[in-house]
Amino acid sequence: MTIISNKGVVLKAHPKGMPKVDEHFELVDRTIDIENLKLGENEFVLRNLYLSLDPYVRLTLKEHEPKHERTINKASKKQLVQIGQIIIGAGVSEIIKTNNPNFKVGDLVYALNLGWEEYSHIKSDATSNFFFINKDLLKDIPLSYFASFIKRGGLAPYASLKYIGKPKEGETIFVSAAAGFVGQLVGQIAKIKGLRVVGSAGSDEKVDYLLNELKFDAAFNYKKTDLNKALSEYCPNGIDIYYENVGGQTLETVLNHCNQFSRIVVCGMISQYNLPFNEKYGVKNLEIIFLRSITMQGFIVSQYLGTDIQNEFEKDFTEWIKAGKIVYREKVIDGIENIAEGFVNLFDGRNIGRTIVKVSDY
Amino acid sequence: MTIISNKGVVLKAHPKGMPKVDEHFELVDRTIDIENLKLGENEFVLRNLYLSLDPYVRLTLKEHEPKHERTINKASKKQLVQIGQIIIGAGVSEIIKTNNPNFKVGDLVYALNLGWEEYSHIKSDATSNFFFINKDLLKDIPLSYFASFIKRGGLAPYASLKYIGKPKEGETIFVSAAAGFVGQLVGQIAKIKGLRVVGSAGSDEKVDYLLNELKFDAAFNYKKTDLNKALSEYCPNGIDIYYENVGGQTLETVLNHCNQFSRIVVCGMISQYNLPFNEKYGVKNLEIIFLRSITMQGFIVSQYLGTDIQNEFEKDFTEWIKAGKIVYREKVIDGIENIAEGFVNLFDGRNIGRTIVKVSDY
Repeated sequence: MTIISNKGVVLKAHPKGMPKVDEHFELVDRTIDIENLKLGENEFVLRNLYLSLDPYVRLTLKEHEPKHERTINKASKKQLVQIGQIIIGAGVSEIIKTNNPNFKVGDLVYALNLGWEEYSHIKSDATSNFFFINKDLLKDIPLSYFASFIKRGGLAPYASLKYIGKPKEGETIFVSAAAGFVGQLVGQIAKIKGLRVVGSAGSDEKVDYLLNELKFDAAFNYKKTDLNKALSEYCPNGIDIYYENVGGQTLETVLNHCNQFSRIVVCGMISQYNLPFNEKYGVKNLEIIFLRSITMQGFIVSQYLGTDIQNEFEKDFTEWIKAGKIVYREKVIDGIENIAEGFVNLFDGRNIGRTIVKVSDY
Repeated sequence: MTIISNKGVVLKAHPKGMPKVDEHFELVDRTIDIENLKLGENEFVLRNLYLSLDPYVRLTLKEHEPKHERTINKASKKQLVQIGQIIIGAGVSEIIKTNNPNFKVGDLVYALNLGWEEYSHIKSDATSNFFFINKDLLKDIPLSYFASFIKRGGLAPYASLKYIGKPKEGETIFVSAAAGFVGQLVGQIAKIKGLRVVGSAGSDEKVDYLLNELKFDAAFNYKKTDLNKALSEYCPNGIDIYYENVGGQTLETVLNHCNQFSRIVVCGMISQYNLPFNEKYGVKNLEIIFLRSITMQGFIVSQYLGTDIQNEFEKDFTEWIKAGKIVYREKVIDGIENIAEGFVNLFDGRNIGRTIVKVSDY
C-alpha cells in the first residue's frame, strides 16, 4: 500500500480585490503513489515541511491581462496560476525521490517553486529554483527559518541595503514601514553596521517594538506626527539612506532631508499601488536627485538569488542569529488546510514578521 | 619695466534672473608685476589662454542665502563670488611662475579655479584643481578643446553614461535635450558603443543636426510630436537607458517605456528649476522604479575628476577625436573684454556646443 493522501490548495477564482478564503481557494485531497511514480529525467518528489506565506503570491493569482504585461514583471505570464491549479510558493522540503545526480534522498532544500500541498512532484528544469540547506546549521537555527527568513525573505533586505544602500558607519538611515518584515531586518542590519536608525510605523505598539525590542535610535507613529518635523528632529545630520517602502508624499518629504550622494533603496511604494492613476501622488521635487547626486534604485530579489551575495548573506545572517544580534518573530500555522486563511490574513496589516505554515514534521 | 596690464571681469551686482552684461559685470584693468611678485609656498602665476563659459558659473553669482544652503551644493558657500571679486571659472593656462616642486614654468594645465582675467595669481592649496595637459596631444587636437571638451565638459557625459548608464551593445538609449552640449556627446558615445540612439530636441534644425551630422538612429522635435507615440515608434524594444536632462512630464512619459533593470542618468531637470514649487510637475508613476528594478541616479562631475575614470576618458576621447568618431562644435570668442557677453548669451538657447574665450595666444 503505497498510495497516500496529498492534500493541497488550488485556485478557485481569480481575486480582484482582497482575496477571500472560501471564494478564491479550495482545499483538494488527492493521492500520490510515491513508490510507483515514474520520474522523468531530473525530476523530484518532495515532502514539503514548511511553506512561507509571502505577499508577492497575490500577484500570481490575477488573471492574465496582456495590456499590463510590462508592469507585472514580478510575476511573468508563465508564473500566473490558472484556475484549478495548485498555488505555487516557496518553502522547505525534503527530497524523498529523485534521479537527479546532483541531489540525493534526504537532502533538505529551499525551493521557490513548491506547490501549496503536502507532496510536490517537480518536473525537470526546476533545480535553478532549489537551494541546499546546510544541516549543520540546524543545531542553532530552527528549520522554519529556512522557509523564508534565511532564504529569500532575508536576502532582499540584506542585499538591497548592502549593495544599493551602501551603509557606512555613522550615517543615518530612515526606514518607512519599519515594523514590516523587511523594515525590521533593514533596521537591525543597519544597527549592526553602526548607523543611526530612524523608523516610522503606523501604531504606537509598533513604535514601542522598534524602540524597545529592535533598539532603533528613534521611531515615530506617522499617523500622529508631522513627517517633516520628525525628520528634522530625528535626523539632524540629514538622511544618507532612505529605505523606501511607501512612496507618494512620504518620498517627497524625505527627499528634502536627503544628503549629497545619499541612496534611496526602493523596496516598495505601497501607498500608491491600489490608486487609479489620477489619484496617485505626484512627486514634485525630483530635481533634488540631480542637485544632490542621489541614487534611487529598485531591485528584485531574484537578481541576488544563486549569486555570491546569497552566500555572504547566509553566512552573516546565521552568525548574527547565533550571536543574538537579530531579533526575528515568526508566526507558525499548523497544517496545509489552514494555509489559505493564513495567506488572506497577511493583508490585514496586523502581522509582525513572517507567517510560515508547518506542513509536516521533520 | 615688469609691471604689465591684467584685465579681468568682476561681479558688479548679484543677478536675480537672467544676468545682464552692464548690470552685473564690470571689466577692470589692473596690473601685475610678475617679476617682483613674491610667491608664498606652492603658489603660482598663470597666464590664462582659454576660458570655458559654463552655465554652472551662474550658480556662483547668487547672493548667499543660508536657508537654501542645502540646495546649492553645486556651488558651496565658499565658492560664491562676492561683489567686486573676479569671477571664477575653468580653462587652460600656462604656468609662468611657481615654487611648487611638482610643476614647472611652461607647463600647461587645465584649472578649475581660474579668474576671468589675463593672469591669475593662485594661492596655495589650489593644485587639487589643476590637471596637466599632455603637450604631445596638441599636434592632433586644438588647445582650446582642453578648456572644457576634453576636460570637465566631456568627462560629465562620458563618465555618467559609462558608470551610471552602463551601456551594452544593442540596447536603446533615449536622450532628452539631445542637441545640447552634453546630449550630443552622450548620443555619439552611445553610437560608438553600438546602441540604438534616439533623441529629442526643440527645433527642426537641431533634429536635422542630430540625424544628419551626429547620425542618431532617430530624433524628433518634441514641440511638434506626442512623446508617448514617438517613443512607441522609435523605441520599439523599450528604453534601456534614459539620459535625463529635462524632468517633469517628460520623465513620467519616459518611465512608461523603460525596461526592467533600465538606468536613468539624471544630468539635469531643466524644465523644473525656475518654477515655484506649486507649479512644478508632480510625477505620479514612480512605482515603476520598483516594479521594473530601475536605477535613477544623479551625479556631479567632481566625483570623477582626478580619478582613474578621468584618465580612461581622456584616452578614449583623444582616440575618438583623432579617428573622427566624435563631432564637436565650439564657438571661440576673442578677448577677455568679451567674456561677459559670451556668458550672458549662453542662456538664449541658441548655442550648439561650448563657448570658449581665447584670452591669449599660446
